Amino acid sequence: MSKEITSREKDYSQWYNDLILKGELADYSAVRGCMVIKPYGFSLWENMRDVLDKMFKDTGHQNAYFPLFVPKSLFEAEEKNAEGFAKECAVVTHYRLKTDPENKSKLIVDPEARLEEELIVRPTSEAIIWNTYKGWIQSYRDLPILVNQWANVVRWEMRTRLFLRTAEFLWQEGHTAHATKAEAIEETERMLHVYATFAEEYMALPVVRGVKSANERFAGAEDTYCIEAMMQDGKALQAGTSHFLGQNFAKAFDVKFADKDNKLDYVWATSWGVSTRLIGALVMAHSDDDGLVMPPRIAPLQAVIVPVYKGEESKPVIDAKAAEIMMELKALGVSVKYDRDDSKRPGWKFAEYEMKGVPVRIALGQRDIENNQVEVARRDTKEKNTVSLEGISTYVKELLEDIQVAMFNKAKNFRDAHITKADTWDEFVKVLDEKGGFVAAHWDGTPETEEEIKGKTKATIRCIPLGNEQEDGKCILTGKPSKERVLFARAY
Amino acid sequence: MSKEITSREKDYSQWYNDLILKGELADYSAVRGCMVIKPYGFSLWENMRDVLDKMFKDTGHQNAYFPLFVPKSLFEAEEKNAEGFAKECAVVTHYRLKTDPENKSKLIVDPEARLEEELIVRPTSEAIIWNTYKGWIQSYRDLPILVNQWANVVRWEMRTRLFLRTAEFLWQEGHTAHATKAEAIEETERMLHVYATFAEEYMALPVVRGVKSANERFAGAEDTYCIEAMMQDGKALQAGTSHFLGQNFAKAFDVKFADKDNKLDYVWATSWGVSTRLIGALVMAHSDDDGLVMPPRIAPLQAVIVPVYKGEESKPVIDAKAAEIMMELKALGVSVKYDRDDSKRPGWKFAEYEMKGVPVRIALGQRDIENNQVEVARRDTKEKNTVSLEGISTYVKELLEDIQVAMFNKAKNFRDAHITKADTWDEFVKVLDEKGGFVAAHWDGTPETEEEIKGKTKATIRCIPLGNEQEDGKCILTGKPSKERVLFARAY
Ligand SMILES: [Zn+2]
Ligand SMILES: [Zn+2]
Repeated sequence: MSKEITSREKDYSQWYNDLILKGELADYSAVRGCMVIKPYGFSLWENMRDVLDKMFKDTGHQNAYFPLFVPKSLFEAEEKNAEGFAKECAVVTHYRLKTDPENKSKLIVDPEARLEEELIVRPTSEAIIWNTYKGWIQSYRDLPILVNQWANVVRWEMRTRLFLRTAEFLWQEGHTAHATKAEAIEETERMLHVYATFAEEYMALPVVRGVKSANERFAGAEDTYCIEAMMQDGKALQAGTSHFLGQNFAKAFDVKFADKDNKLDYVWATSWGVSTRLIGALVMAHSDDDGLVMPPRIAPLQAVIVPVYKGEESKPVIDAKAAEIMMELKALGVSVKYDRDDSKRPGWKFAEYEMKGVPVRIALGQRDIENNQVEVARRDTKEKNTVSLEGISTYVKELLEDIQVAMFNKAKNFRDAHITKADTWDEFVKVLDEKGGFVAAHWDGTPETEEEIKGKTKATIRCIPLGNEQEDGKCILTGKPSKERVLFARAY
Repeated sequence: MSKEITSREKDYSQWYNDLILKGELADYSAVRGCMVIKPYGFSLWENMRDVLDKMFKDTGHQNAYFPLFVPKSLFEAEEKNAEGFAKECAVVTHYRLKTDPENKSKLIVDPEARLEEELIVRPTSEAIIWNTYKGWIQSYRDLPILVNQWANVVRWEMRTRLFLRTAEFLWQEGHTAHATKAEAIEETERMLHVYATFAEEYMALPVVRGVKSANERFAGAEDTYCIEAMMQDGKALQAGTSHFLGQNFAKAFDVKFADKDNKLDYVWATSWGVSTRLIGALVMAHSDDDGLVMPPRIAPLQAVIVPVYKGEESKPVIDAKAAEIMMELKALGVSVKYDRDDSKRPGWKFAEYEMKGVPVRIALGQRDIENNQVEVARRDTKEKNTVSLEGISTYVKELLEDIQVAMFNKAKNFRDAHITKADTWDEFVKVLDEKGGFVAAHWDGTPETEEEIKGKTKATIRCIPLGNEQEDGKCILTGKPSKERVLFARAY
């Protein structure tokens, strides 16, 4: 496969696909809308998962595992949730195949093995989990339940994109149960901040923390909190959501608890999730026309050493020095690879690791070693420096931190430069069409107006930022009075 | 829920279920044959997974992720594999629900959203993976592929048991591709030894390494290697399998590679897996009539400190000393919990942690502290010792290792005492019925004889042990000549 990448300017969408496929993050599969996550992409996901998992555990959560299937009668119990997902459900109807009587080498679905009740492949697990919690909760002593699960879910999407929108995806879903409304809201907000911290500190992805409008709310939630990121084409991407579910699921599944005075009340709920979609966000936020750019803290590989041999006799010298540097770097906790594959030239390797976004590349030749120096290239800015071999490992370790910060700042500057106020409809449309990004505009607060704006411009309300400034104004579409600006954008 | 456990003697099967449910490892779910893995059980699985994952990576493997669904046409491509799993497949036939026109609060499967080709929920992933590998392999330079995936799979079982046999279960499945037969066989054996090492050194579960007879082989394999463990009721349990798949899947999916001389040949394959079934094995191998007994190296919690308060004034003294011990133990890498829940009496807590199988329990009272000592109980033998507070953390750390070894030795002695040679049919049946365990007996090597023995006794050939002693003898059933004994047993 050619390693040429379509440029962003030429075709942003093709650029994205090229990065995913040629950067070996994922591959298409034989199943419509499902992808294969390749080892390099999965290693990135493992690093993200491990950081998040620790953050969840540090905030008191435990992992568990619930069934893949949801019986239809449970699925439909919480009406809004069911309605929201009904159109994208994969449904299991049979439990056996048999030999095709007309062609012995083929199988057909055995019509006699029809399930009495169809099973929905979980698009999200509130129903099966709240049906389970019913058996776990009797009194306030059983609360809170702070459980998370790492799982695959299926939402039958008509138009799919690698990582961004696939029929099956991997995610985590937290499902918590509380004795009071206040505690549940506190949990919802806590997890939103965990997500924001993860996005900013690990993915180098600045996010706006906010609350969704009613139109964009999770089906079955009272309130959906979200983090919204901005991609290089000026489109927004929802990077994580945390839902305050009120007592909706407790009522649907009849989950009550006795408080200290033995009074019965419905349990309060939250759920929150991030998915492999984050990988799509990471790719679109940081990459360039030469390939992926990985944030060091979650990069599958943080540094690579490429030997530049001049003749056979240089090999032992270079290999020995490389081994020494490797050992030092590993001692500092840097993940590093020495690529001594003889069948590839150094230039080919440089391009390959640029494509894969490895943050730091060290080129090591005999002349360098004689001069007690080495060439270090950083992936984000492509800057190259000749660095003394004394203290090279500390240099690389610090450089990785610098890259992490620089990537965040670059993305933040871009994001901040693409939040634009608009006060008239013409301005609003012009910003969306010409500049892109978030448009901060007044809105009259009605779902109808949001819907109409979406119909006219494809822009939706990404969020009402937390701690939003209060300001009198007039709705961008209807001119009706408004108390605050909200963020509109076209979105993935 | 009462914490009473049925004794092994009274009802072994009920004893097992009591342990799983009351030890809070898992719970039944609303989905037929599927279980909920509760936080305590999942934490055990996480520890097992983390150790195995490291062992896989240390032997050069990487993780990836392949689709949950297998299109029927791919599923049926490798005939034996398809035949082997056809009778237990969950089948997705539709991708949408709609409102029931006769009852607006209900949903029905939308008949217009029928899939053109049915999707099988993976019972194992050879088909989807080899269809993918076809696109990844052109030449010997692309080999070997050493990939593993952690995933859920579904096999529709009619009679299910928590952990031991569930419709959905969690597992890992390694799928490797090689240029030569020898290399593939070497990989198959390597992974068998990884499994055996894991079972013996971490689960404290002695296993016999061997090869399956043709009747018990994985559908689509040329050879199935296995590790077989023995449960306390004398029944065998297959704890892991590693398959040499020959070129069967390469042929079914037309996966060829060009060797160094540009000659095309089919790729050689292996696959290997262990599942949450291992938790069932662990429970049945080590537990007693008071509850679970966790091997320290993978225990969710290795030690617990229970305060024995005498009046309010003793609390600060005990709490302070407990905090000190906690810190020391954590510094030594011991996972430990201080249970200062005031609403439960010490005796209740003792029973609770016995039930959960926590390897070491420390009871801490004010008198103890004044005497500079503490009571330490080990779960496996129930032995209690009064130990000096000087060096208590080192004592506990060493005790954990002692328990690990003692548990293995106890299980190994039991296992060794239950391998019995039988040379006549009467002996064979008598051992199976009265003593149980493995029966080492001669067999004429034919599938028909094995089948007939199974029909008469419910015993199957668990394996032909690796490095089996060669010895002339006569088949236990037919009297035909045989060159070695094989291990028969009734099995889970
Ligand atoms: Zn711009
Ligand atoms: Zn016995």
